[in-house]
Amino acid sequence: MPAPADHDARRTELADLAAELIAREGLDALSIRRLAAATGYSTTVVTHYFETKRALLLAVYRACADRAQARVDAAIARDPADLVGCLAAFLPIGAEARRDWRVNFAFWQVALHDQGFAEEQRWWTRHATETIAAIMAGAGGDAELLLTLAEGIAVRAAFEPDWTDERQRDFLRGQLERVAPGRLAHVSDPQ
Amino acid sequence: MPAPADHDARRTELADLAAELIAREGLDALSIRRLAAATGYSTTVVTHYFETKRALLLAVYRACADRAQARVDAAIARDPADLVGCLAAFLPIGAEARRDWRVNFAFWQVALHDQGFAEEQRWWTRHATETIAAIMAGAGGDAELLLTLAEGIAVRAAFEPDWTDERQRDFLRGQLERVAPGRLAHVSDPQ
Repeated sequence: MPAPADHDARRTELADLAAELIAREGLDALSIRRLAAATGYSTTVVTHYFETKRALLLAVYRACADRAQARVDAAIARDPADLVGCLAAFLPIGAEARRDWRVNFAFWQVALHDQGFAEEQRWWTRHATETIAAIMAGAGGDAELLLTLAEGIAVRAAFEPDWTDERQRDFLRGQLERVAPGRLAHVSDPQ
Repeated sequence: MPAPADHDARRTELADLAAELIAREGLDALSIRRLAAATGYSTTVVTHYFETKRALLLAVYRACADRAQARVDAAIARDPADLVGCLAAFLPIGAEARRDWRVNFAFWQVALHDQGFAEEQRWWTRHATETIAAIMAGAGGDAELLLTLAEGIAVRAAFEPDWTDERQRDFLRGQLERVAPGRLAHVSDPQ
């Protein structure tokens, strides 16, 4: 029996590879069998970690949400006054975030017909709204507006190549200048 | 051989039923066989109209986009100065629009991995941006912002029951007051 640390590492490895598969080929490409083939583990091993495709997708979605939260936390730790930098961390900017947003799209498709997934989506939406509200505290911004804009930007960036990282950041900065004029501490350009 | 009018009517009937199926059960539920069973036509008849599931989904998406355009055109015909009413016609407000937005979600899922579908999505996005720009002409509004907001509102309304028709309209009105202050001709409440 593997040590707990190995167990967690393998679970993460499997969820990561599943995210890659979904992002590259879509949800239909994801199966326990396919994941087993991609990792070299047996289906028995994979099912030990994820009993069903649904459990696997939920784990992948949560891992994506956790990574988004980690990007936001890192931006806040870097400079909490950098509103553009902190909020840009929610957007599909950079390879990791772009990949993870493709997983979100796949998850949504299921969540439209699955109450448990829809509840999960709502939980993260509330959580993100609270995080944005904390980032904007004192800047008079509207967290609901910014989250709604972030969802819209993600949709556009998914299909329109001219919604580059740079354009997403500029668009966000333009909106922040409108909703919180004079409160942008920096012309942000996070690493 | 059926007359052209019958042909068009049957094609529309099939695409409509397919939209219902996708909205209610998801894209996986859609198949030529299933559609045939639901309509009482043979699969041979259905394949006469839509050779593949892909062709069917494309037709369903276009029908949804056409209905959205028709809602917008009707709002413009009613009162072109009613900015809230004209732009609200893009949103998942009302049963038909909510259903059609669920089809959009299904289409996106495929468009992420299908260049032809992605191009179709871009075409409609450009078209909608131009329509919004025309609606806002003279009001100083930003069509890109409003379209991006509409996409974000649609995502939220898909999962959060408290994004009612009323709340979507209020949210839109609030943003319009911000981007085009003093230009809202009416407190809009379209029928």
